[in-house]
Amino acid sequence: MHFLPTERTRARRHPQRASYDADVIFAILDAGLICHLAYVVDGQPYCTPTAYWRDGTRVYWHGSAASRMLDAQAAGIAVCMTVTHLDGLVVGRSGFTHSLNYRSVMAFGHPGVIADAREKRHATDRFIERLYPGRTGEIRAAHAQELEAISVVGMAIEDASAKIRDAGILDREADLARPGWAGVIPTAVTIGEIMPDPHLPSGLPAPSSVAAYTRGTRLDDVLTAAAIGQQTGA
Amino acid sequence: MHFLPTERTRARRHPQRASYDADVIFAILDAGLICHLAYVVDGQPYCTPTAYWRDGTRVYWHGSAASRMLDAQAAGIAVCMTVTHLDGLVVGRSGFTHSLNYRSVMAFGHPGVIADAREKRHATDRFIERLYPGRTGEIRAAHAQELEAISVVGMAIEDASAKIRDAGILDREADLARPGWAGVIPTAVTIGEIMPDPHLPSGLPAPSSVAAYTRGTRLDDVLTAAAIGQQTGA
Repeated sequence: MHFLPTERTRARRHPQRASYDADVIFAILDAGLICHLAYVVDGQPYCTPTAYWRDGTRVYWHGSAASRMLDAQAAGIAVCMTVTHLDGLVVGRSGFTHSLNYRSVMAFGHPGVIADAREKRHATDRFIERLYPGRTGEIRAAHAQELEAISVVGMAIEDASAKIRDAGILDREADLARPGWAGVIPTAVTIGEIMPDPHLPSGLPAPSSVAAYTRGTRLDDVLTAAAIGQQTGA
Repeated sequence: MHFLPTERTRARRHPQRASYDADVIFAILDAGLICHLAYVVDGQPYCTPTAYWRDGTRVYWHGSAASRMLDAQAAGIAVCMTVTHLDGLVVGRSGFTHSLNYRSVMAFGHPGVIADAREKRHATDRFIERLYPGRTGEIRAAHAQELEAISVVGMAIEDASAKIRDAGILDREADLARPGWAGVIPTAVTIGEIMPDPHLPSGLPAPSSVAAYTRGTRLDDVLTAAAIGQQTGA
């Protein structure tokens, strides 16, 4: 499946870095946890970071039922959701060839609020399972008033594009002969030492739902594996 | 110094997590490298990730002179710049108390393009120095046509707010007695193994400008130290 390039997604700059392939786009979304949402309220653009998840060609996010952002978005305004992974710093031989490696997706649509309580419960359970496979079986179900206290919005992706830079240094021929160092510094979001809640009885082992979050592991790897598991029902 | 809370920055939700203190806001900006920019072109909001840097109460970013985004922003449209650090996943005893730890800043303004060539050179040099202290002394100066090929925009921060969640699990009293694990999974952007450019003579040591980028180090720590060094002229 491909998204059709549109006026708002067609890459003018570095078209070789752009992709409209849904597999490429979904892989970048499934490797992430935080998106940034651009939307307009009273003529003012806002850029709000929030957690998100994907279900097929739809993306979801949630927040307090009292949220100004979700209030505005429930009315079906235009939103651009962007997810970015910083993969490295590129240190060139000239200022001009210093760069960054990254994977990013911009997805456009008009979110709508999920009013139905059952659908809302399903969506939020799916979010927890997306992060912690099996976790909904370990915890109590959400109380009805907990669900009422949050808003969940869903957005069909109308069009989207990915942009990827995954290369070394693109120095000019004339600069290659110059003495001096150049290289790539890889970066990734990684997991630290897991911290059990101080209220727990000591020695209680972490459950299987969080087993993948081991020190030094890449977060994008954990999230990707969980998304694949969720989609294949593993 | 404090930014005054305005209609667009005053926190409705979790006001205890919000700050308008410039030191808090600048520390979050100085720990980051990638921002997301919300802006509107022909009524459509866009959310674009890009590298940025700070100089006093101004923020800067740059790109190709042919960039559609910078073209639009050069005209002085409204922009919301957001920087987010994901610090951890909070695994609660109920779905409702699963959360995230983070530091984020939203900064509002109207960017303008830097037309003057000297000012542009100064700004881009400052960006390189901000990432790699001393690097501009290791590489040749930018050619005039390289500077012409890029646009640099600067934005005075008109108002801004920070939001920080840095806590454990806020479970209900009734849930604390339930059996089952809960905890916090810390996350950070960390540095991988530095990769020298394959064109380099083997064994050429990395210069002091990149010495702080050692495997396993947190990127926010490296960037914070470099920003402090730049501001104090160290």
